[in-house]
Amino acid sequence: MKKSTILLSLALMIAGVASGQRRAPLVSPEVRNDCTVVFRYASDAASEVLLDIQFLGSPLPMRKGDDGVWSVTVGPIVPDIYPYSFRVDGVTVMDPSNPDYFPNERHKGSLLDIKGPQPLTQAMLNVPHGSVNYDYYLSRNLGTTGRALVYTPPGYDTNSNKRYPVFYLISGTTDTDETYFKVGRTNFILDNLIAQGLAEPMIIVMPYGNPGYYFPAGSEERRTADFSKDLLGDLIPYIDATYRTIADRKSRAIGGFSRGGNQALTNGLHNLDKFAWLCSYASFAGNPEQFETSFASLIADPARTNQQIELFWLGVGNEDFLYPNAKLFMDKLAQNGIRTVTRISGGGHTWMNARDYLEESAKLLFK
Amino acid sequence: MKKSTILLSLALMIAGVASGQRRAPLVSPEVRNDCTVVFRYASDAASEVLLDIQFLGSPLPMRKGDDGVWSVTVGPIVPDIYPYSFRVDGVTVMDPSNPDYFPNERHKGSLLDIKGPQPLTQAMLNVPHGSVNYDYYLSRNLGTTGRALVYTPPGYDTNSNKRYPVFYLISGTTDTDETYFKVGRTNFILDNLIAQGLAEPMIIVMPYGNPGYYFPAGSEERRTADFSKDLLGDLIPYIDATYRTIADRKSRAIGGFSRGGNQALTNGLHNLDKFAWLCSYASFAGNPEQFETSFASLIADPARTNQQIELFWLGVGNEDFLYPNAKLFMDKLAQNGIRTVTRISGGGHTWMNARDYLEESAKLLFK
Repeated sequence: MKKSTILLSLALMIAGVASGQRRAPLVSPEVRNDCTVVFRYASDAASEVLLDIQFLGSPLPMRKGDDGVWSVTVGPIVPDIYPYSFRVDGVTVMDPSNPDYFPNERHKGSLLDIKGPQPLTQAMLNVPHGSVNYDYYLSRNLGTTGRALVYTPPGYDTNSNKRYPVFYLISGTTDTDETYFKVGRTNFILDNLIAQGLAEPMIIVMPYGNPGYYFPAGSEERRTADFSKDLLGDLIPYIDATYRTIADRKSRAIGGFSRGGNQALTNGLHNLDKFAWLCSYASFAGNPEQFETSFASLIADPARTNQQIELFWLGVGNEDFLYPNAKLFMDKLAQNGIRTVTRISGGGHTWMNARDYLEESAKLLFK
Repeated sequence: MKKSTILLSLALMIAGVASGQRRAPLVSPEVRNDCTVVFRYASDAASEVLLDIQFLGSPLPMRKGDDGVWSVTVGPIVPDIYPYSFRVDGVTVMDPSNPDYFPNERHKGSLLDIKGPQPLTQAMLNVPHGSVNYDYYLSRNLGTTGRALVYTPPGYDTNSNKRYPVFYLISGTTDTDETYFKVGRTNFILDNLIAQGLAEPMIIVMPYGNPGYYFPAGSEERRTADFSKDLLGDLIPYIDATYRTIADRKSRAIGGFSRGGNQALTNGLHNLDKFAWLCSYASFAGNPEQFETSFASLIADPARTNQQIELFWLGVGNEDFLYPNAKLFMDKLAQNGIRTVTRISGGGHTWMNARDYLEESAKLLFK
């Protein structure tokens, strides 16, 4: 038995044992040069396989070939990263052939990455790269060990005297601390902006917006309170003690997407002694109808508030189901003389928009 | 509409949109104090749901309740971390309620973590923690950007003068660079051993064993060659330039599980000028039948070889499908006067064993 034969049978045995499949590994998704995409799923037994992807109005039927491989070709598709899944006889599954998944507490999706002829800012390009660190810290307030992801910019490890501003960036409901890394592509967006001189080198901390980890029933208030206690009392002190940060309000930003945007705005606006830069991506702070009560002290002296806030950036898509509240929140800020930068884009409550907002606002931070 | 009501409906809307489910989130797996575990899966439409978990001989049927939730109670189970999945009418799925997944190029599994009354070395305990960094580096040899995960021990960021030995640790076939982190729990195993004074503080680099990322057909030799070129020509120089390493052979180890063990042994034994510590977890170097040819220069002068190798650690389970070859490789080493530390455990080709071997051998490294 030749060495290569042993190795190959070893590889196939393990792959076979692991996947329960005996056919040659499929390629899916196959992104072609013209931005059309072939999706494939192998099943002899299934009677219906659908492709479910965010830009399609409804799931698309896939067709079964003689080899038991279901497939469908879609596009050309506008280059971007799209979450998708298959529905096999009604059962939602990730694409078994695709190792890039959407980290989430609940739903299980794969990621389609269409790079296109002109690379987007979210692409992995040949520029100096920062790294993303998974950090574990003692949360005295919650009596547990917390985890946060920390992007350090290119050169952080070798420029051992330089200190950096910090942006706290929070994912949405049911997302985890990994989502702004793996779906949001925070690291590549910043690597590319920094390489082009369009963003300041900064540290970005991605906390877990749901520090209790799972959804205990009826605990929305408790989660909100727990997150604030952990962020202000444990995570920020840990980051300032561990990384070479500039530990003052003028060098600290907070932002987030969806529920994470709400958490960012609520914590930011009530702690302007700690944060001078605020970013809201498809979100709003609490109930906009109660804006005047919730933020009475801020609107009592808008000139002072405007002086404290270096940047108040808000973006939302006009098809987003949160658009009415996000727009109302923007309007209330304007009516009360609070200065903001607002961006109404197309599209809905998607990570395609979340990445665009991050890219646009990151260019303005710490300048 | 109260603030809490808005927030709750926001959370439920997003969860609902994302998961396609409208019922309250399930808890699954539910690990009870007596180490029994309840698995749950919600489906009104399914006609059969099975639990597939490595310690069960065959998949276990789950039973449907009046609420459309399928469940089964298993155990008590010996505390450890086990990969599992559900089979819904023949379709393999991760547990939708469990965010802890098994990173892999192909198969999609969830992770069951039974902590038990006495915490294992792989548990997240209240000790000083290292961090795990996702690093991107230019691979000149492969003309691409590579990624590797890098564990830095507790205190690395604050002891800015200390330098550390480095262990290169490679996952198995179809695993990714994330598998030794998320399934192997390299960081917690080392955190706990270091806290107890049982292991030297070290940096652990977890490369991607399949640097071409996917399985191009018939490319086993090419993958092997590509991995070596990248490891020796790009990754090691990058790590030594970026981290505070002790950059010599006496402070550099290489090891791995399954195919990663093969890669570790092959690269290590042919580059003893770069590595003095070798670890094989459920693996063997190439074809043991050709041992005398492959390693002629090493066995020509076993005394010199033994002087060069500080530790040659090999472990395998007696139910492992690779046991015959791994055992034959151990025997060939012994017959040729090469000194090793061998460990024949129970169990098969599992990550339960891979973690145990890492824990045992890490205690011996760099001492």
